[in-house]
Amino acid sequence: MKLATLKNGHKDGRLVIVSSDLRHAVDAVHIAPTLLDAVERWHVTAPRLGALYEMLNAGAAAGAFDFDPSQAAAPLPRAPQWCDGSAFLNHGRLMEKAFNIPPIPDSDRIPLMYQGGSDDLLGAHDDIPLPDEADGIDFEGEFGVIVRDVPLGCPAAATRDRILLLVQINDVSLRAFGPREMRTGFGFFQAKPSSSFAPVAVTPDEIGGAWRDSRVQLDLDVQYNGQWFGNPNGREMNFGFDQLIAHAARTRRLSAGTIIGSGTVSNEGGAQGSACIAERRAIEQIAGGAPTTPFMRFGDRVRMEARLDGRPVFGVIDQRVVQSVPPQA
Amino acid sequence: MKLATLKNGHKDGRLVIVSSDLRHAVDAVHIAPTLLDAVERWHVTAPRLGALYEMLNAGAAAGAFDFDPSQAAAPLPRAPQWCDGSAFLNHGRLMEKAFNIPPIPDSDRIPLMYQGGSDDLLGAHDDIPLPDEADGIDFEGEFGVIVRDVPLGCPAAATRDRILLLVQINDVSLRAFGPREMRTGFGFFQAKPSSSFAPVAVTPDEIGGAWRDSRVQLDLDVQYNGQWFGNPNGREMNFGFDQLIAHAARTRRLSAGTIIGSGTVSNEGGAQGSACIAERRAIEQIAGGAPTTPFMRFGDRVRMEARLDGRPVFGVIDQRVVQSVPPQA
Repeated sequence: MKLATLKNGHKDGRLVIVSSDLRHAVDAVHIAPTLLDAVERWHVTAPRLGALYEMLNAGAAAGAFDFDPSQAAAPLPRAPQWCDGSAFLNHGRLMEKAFNIPPIPDSDRIPLMYQGGSDDLLGAHDDIPLPDEADGIDFEGEFGVIVRDVPLGCPAAATRDRILLLVQINDVSLRAFGPREMRTGFGFFQAKPSSSFAPVAVTPDEIGGAWRDSRVQLDLDVQYNGQWFGNPNGREMNFGFDQLIAHAARTRRLSAGTIIGSGTVSNEGGAQGSACIAERRAIEQIAGGAPTTPFMRFGDRVRMEARLDGRPVFGVIDQRVVQSVPPQA
Repeated sequence: MKLATLKNGHKDGRLVIVSSDLRHAVDAVHIAPTLLDAVERWHVTAPRLGALYEMLNAGAAAGAFDFDPSQAAAPLPRAPQWCDGSAFLNHGRLMEKAFNIPPIPDSDRIPLMYQGGSDDLLGAHDDIPLPDEADGIDFEGEFGVIVRDVPLGCPAAATRDRILLLVQINDVSLRAFGPREMRTGFGFFQAKPSSSFAPVAVTPDEIGGAWRDSRVQLDLDVQYNGQWFGNPNGREMNFGFDQLIAHAARTRRLSAGTIIGSGTVSNEGGAQGSACIAERRAIEQIAGGAPTTPFMRFGDRVRMEARLDGRPVFGVIDQRVVQSVPPQA
């Protein structure tokens, strides 16, 4: 099943079902007005949404229309929670090696995770408004999961049936703030403005055997200003989403609609390129003593897509960064 | 105006108006079903809520009933965002001095703030379920504000009319996780389970001259297991809420319903005691070479209240910590 949220002027948008080939959509508001409502009442809504999805794919859904991904908001534009892991240790190791950062103790045993803001998540084709090119504007290509309610203390082995949907993410990052915010110990805040999401969230069965070991084992194709930038695969996650969820739920319940992110997808060896500029700069630093790829300028574009059997799974993230409009005095 | 959210089985609860003396309440769902909806449409809802508040205080509101704070959820049980500052520098300086922590650079110039989870905020009399006494269970008494939409880049001077409501908070903290999570640079996560809120959110005019310089200049009375623990005043905030909001909005918009916290209230000199155990332990360490006050055990209670002219403003936080029930296999 594939689900999307269309913009309707309200922050939570309205729920639609999207056909398997991403070409058609049909309103699902009579089943659940929003995706958040659908995931909160999943045991009731999922069978009905699934039946409508079947009809849509068969060309038999009344009121079907062409799916326009530019009208899609993030699947959960205002999610209850956004917990972003850093589960590809290769990424952190490259950063440490390049910039002489001491390794984080136990990071091979305890997942790294920060709490992100989730009140204003962006759609796949939305411009990314940011105040200043000097902030070190970067993208991060990630996979993520949306869960139903998870009890406090839920062990990893019991998390798998809590995962309702898979998503694809651009975790927008401002590298100029990162080092200071890390040094304070309070973690990322200004360094992590609103993240963006591919237009469609999918149930794990939609990717068949590529959903394995609680990992999205697909290539994430990243193009930057029309050029190949990387195609790292999700299989090299050092912690599966099951382990990330258990980490997040160690001292708290997670409400339905919580999104858990993988962190930037990163593969060992370098042949798969990178899913963020910071990592490419680290590789350049290691190889040549200095980074050569600049961070993003206003007008720069990033495109991210994951395909299965040649067809996009989540749709496409394709966004520009633009200068934010200063507020009126 | 005073507002509260009563539990109704849905995560967002239902909106009520509470009388100035906190004794009576009246449903406001015909104006806005939830506080979140009310703050999103504040220009429409505030005049109507205000009129009903006047009637309630005059004893003329049809359907008024006794206000039972034990039935209150957090004013925004599922807030779009929770950004917690650490704006009383005295607190951080005591921690640094006691435990030989190097000072955080620029922390007198750039506010410290972490992103907290806000999907599952607790009511004033709810038990606090936690898994393990060994996690270093602590409370933190704070004040906070709820804002309407704030544009990206909003300067401090333009934030003041964005502040709709004041709140009183128990920022539950697990000290055993803090140092490691700070060292990773990713910031607090497991160290910050769900926070709790006093039952009533109030408009700034409710505290008259005690709302000054974007600070809640009230004593926060903290009792621990029935004993005085502290009564620090909010006036010593080194950054006002205007500056905290501007910091939060430096690289992002803030959605209506975002909560900004002051950090644990802390006064210089020591006579006002503390609003968290960690700070008292720091003072003990400095004075006697070792902390003597243990962290909380299951069954321990904390009570927090701010009074104006002898009357509680926000109602009372009065909670126990209890052992969480392990999830079923």
